[in-house]
Amino acid sequence: MNTYDLSQLRDALRKFAEERDWDQYHSPKNLASALAVEAAELLERFQWLTEDQSRNLAPDDLAKVRHEMADVLNYLVRLADKLDVNLLEAASEKIQLNAQKYPVDKSRGSAKKYSDL
Amino acid sequence: MNTYDLSQLRDALRKFAEERDWDQYHSPKNLASALAVEAAELLERFQWLTEDQSRNLAPDDLAKVRHEMADVLNYLVRLADKLDVNLLEAASEKIQLNAQKYPVDKSRGSAKKYSDL
Amino acid sequence: MNTYDLSQLRDALRKFAEERDWDQYHSPKNLASALAVEAAELLERFQWLTEDQSRNLAPDDLAKVRHEMADVLNYLVRLADKLDVNLLEAASEKIQLNAQKYPVDKSRGSAKKYSDL
Amino acid sequence: MNTYDLSQLRDALRKFAEERDWDQYHSPKNLASALAVEAAELLERFQWLTEDQSRNLAPDDLAKVRHEMADVLNYLVRLADKLDVNLLEAASEKIQLNAQKYPVDKSRGSAKKYSDL
Repeated sequence: MNTYDLSQLRDALRKFAEERDWDQYHSPKNLASALAVEAAELLERFQWLTEDQSRNLAPDDLAKVRHEMADVLNYLVRLADKLDVNLLEAASEKIQLNAQKYPVDKSRGSAKKYSDL
Repeated sequence: MNTYDLSQLRDALRKFAEERDWDQYHSPKNLASALAVEAAELLERFQWLTEDQSRNLAPDDLAKVRHEMADVLNYLVRLADKLDVNLLEAASEKIQLNAQKYPVDKSRGSAKKYSDL
Repeated sequence: MNTYDLSQLRDALRKFAEERDWDQYHSPKNLASALAVEAAELLERFQWLTEDQSRNLAPDDLAKVRHEMADVLNYLVRLADKLDVNLLEAASEKIQLNAQKYPVDKSRGSAKKYSDL
Repeated sequence: MNTYDLSQLRDALRKFAEERDWDQYHSPKNLASALAVEAAELLERFQWLTEDQSRNLAPDDLAKVRHEMADVLNYLVRLADKLDVNLLEAASEKIQLNAQKYPVDKSRGSAKKYSDL
């Protein structure tokens, strides 16, 4: 099985949708819904676990979590393709903005101060 | 501003959390919640738009959407780091599994047939 | 089959959890996750439909949607019980606040102006 | 300030939307998105808290949580109105179905066994 890089993943997802004529369903609005749904399916795996249990998943549970994470990434990449967004650029920019927004000395140890990251 | 690749992004997020002593909040359970919350913030940008409007975002709206997408990716990368999941490997595997699950000739043009992708 | 009112529903859900010793899982944090997960399952039913299709569900689809809506209400009532929140009071208050926030003459026909309701 | 019952709440929300000509945005598809978004805003209030902290909210935090719960209920009631669903009937039915699905003697103390409630 091949491992794609991000741009190969984008191309594979594009081809996948085209071959099945699913492009018609992939409006950004719908893809954003699908992404939120997949993120919730991922969350479902953790909802009744304690935080400690979530750090020590059994191999079977981890395998399922891993697949849900894959779905999230795939929809995110698909949405980025549709909107012509460079995900790595956007994510890099955001972390650098967050570094300014949450200076180390004022943010240490307090979750109160942040909602983003 | 630097653009990270995925492993640099992981390292930058790791350092970001460590410097602020936020690692204590970043249990997989909590990160999965945060990811779902960010995905919903992304969805919020589209909720009252028609599908057509979602394909033609004004530059300002696209900029906000792009930042929400960055947040989603950043939490996903952070969660992958905590669970030691290789995101690209998982996503590549999933798309190849989906290709078997949704054969082209039986899936053409029908959203009924799929829920995943 | 009996139809409960809201306070009977609260009591039935409380008894249901107690009998199964599930109260230990029902922290507000976990119930809020479960509620978000159920809301996403509801959304999943609509994600590939057009808005028009969503207004004309087939009986089978409506039956599934109805069950997802029931799950959302049940978790919301359970969370309200745990936090001692009067849902109807809170909802009534919110709609009256929204009436002030979105005056009729300034809000007509524009989704831009509102995110809440 | 008046406290509505569920059917008065439905009527107040209907009037609210009509007066502002917002009915056009309130397709079931869009309302399901808005509901999921509000549920995530509720979850956001809990995402970095421990379960114990979530059981002991400060009055200010509880007030915010209460408003998010109100938003969830209001969208759920609005969606039920659009789909002509009787929420209390559906919720009552669901809890009685769950009682059969999760018999007391087989479900005691195990979150593994259930995903719904």
